[in-house]
Amino acid sequence: MKTTAKSKHCIEVCFSPKLFPEIVIRENYIVVLVDILRATTSICAAFANGVKNILPVATLEEAKILKSKGFLVASEQDGKKLDFADFGNSAFNFSREAIEGKTVVYCTTNGTRALDIARKAEKIAMGAFINLQALTDWLVAEEKNVVILCSGWKNKFCLEDALFAGALTENLLDRGGFATHCDSAVAALDLWHVAQPDILGYIEKAAHRHRLKMLELDDVIPFSFTLSTTSVVPVFEGKEIVNVAI
Amino acid sequence: MKTTAKSKHCIEVCFSPKLFPEIVIRENYIVVLVDILRATTSICAAFANGVKNILPVATLEEAKILKSKGFLVASEQDGKKLDFADFGNSAFNFSREAIEGKTVVYCTTNGTRALDIARKAEKIAMGAFINLQALTDWLVAEEKNVVILCSGWKNKFCLEDALFAGALTENLLDRGGFATHCDSAVAALDLWHVAQPDILGYIEKAAHRHRLKMLELDDVIPFSFTLSTTSVVPVFEGKEIVNVAI
Repeated sequence: MKTTAKSKHCIEVCFSPKLFPEIVIRENYIVVLVDILRATTSICAAFANGVKNILPVATLEEAKILKSKGFLVASEQDGKKLDFADFGNSAFNFSREAIEGKTVVYCTTNGTRALDIARKAEKIAMGAFINLQALTDWLVAEEKNVVILCSGWKNKFCLEDALFAGALTENLLDRGGFATHCDSAVAALDLWHVAQPDILGYIEKAAHRHRLKMLELDDVIPFSFTLSTTSVVPVFEGKEIVNVAI
Repeated sequence: MKTTAKSKHCIEVCFSPKLFPEIVIRENYIVVLVDILRATTSICAAFANGVKNILPVATLEEAKILKSKGFLVASEQDGKKLDFADFGNSAFNFSREAIEGKTVVYCTTNGTRALDIARKAEKIAMGAFINLQALTDWLVAEEKNVVILCSGWKNKFCLEDALFAGALTENLLDRGGFATHCDSAVAALDLWHVAQPDILGYIEKAAHRHRLKMLELDDVIPFSFTLSTTSVVPVFEGKEIVNVAI
């Protein structure tokens, strides 16, 4: 994929981890991971509340071993906190009292699979509505192509991640250094424009919002759709996620 | 996936063949194949011009053997008609003079892959803007769940197929016997509502529209986005595609 103006960096949106192998951008790119109603909003909230770093692990076994060594552990299944864990994956779990200055082990099959998928990227950043502006500023400063990778729900397209992809695409295009020829980015932008006047009203249409309601975990929804409440930019480096905000 | 009213049939939209394994509807469903700027509009146009039946084949070798036996053959690569073939895959190739009452062999890797993917469906129908109303009437009469399978472009999400998915979803919901809890269907509907006032203007944003322009094949675009100009409903049965319109 070529940009119309060669000086511009490309934006591509990927609506499911299963579609990541089809991305056209092949070099010099940053992946922005998006999982609005689960991992990425929670990770941003944890850094906003002063967590030192986050260690993503793929299996319950690893999580349990690290728990036995004294680490704080976040782990959930189908949205519910597992018994041995300190936290589930609601952003509200990561209070300043619980995590400030500490390391948290985050057990998430989906999240670590996404990190694996995106391993060829130069950097992998966590995107959420709550860090939208800080993430935009950081991406502009990085001057690289951007692939926005929506986690979706069990590999399916989901509205909340697509809306964030649209919001971030709009922000980057507005800053002038980016262009896109990606149909998914165009669609995400248009969906964001439809939703923006009343995001919480719009998100009533999302399937995952109803799953959370059934689990009585939907209290986190207004928080998850509030724009730019934190200036953190969590980035995966080596084996840990750290805050690299400008 | 359960419908809120048990009597209603479900609609699910799949934005890429790669996402088809993730569909939630597992039984009693019809797949509607969508490939607006290539196969499905052309197939509908062929039936509108009186083709007897269409034999999809997966390989050039099969197509060449059938050509040597006297069949008319449609075959293209990257949008261009192959030398040995009678037609490419532009809807304009299939004129009444050329095909009325005849069998056409259609060589399409993507199309036959999609047919393979959808093999567990009760029936597989071809959807295009030009047969939107006839397809809606047929689906309503069939009284089954509906999975709208967008071909996309090289497995990526594409705007034109998503718009059609939205238009068909709207038609089916309007008829009252259908419901959806699928985020892709909600997104497709909203994109269709954004595009509908000026479809040709909107489709200027689509990447594939620009690829066709470069190939000088974009003359077919206004035709491809004209609603309900034919009453055919091509359906894959056994090894051939036939017209089953009511």
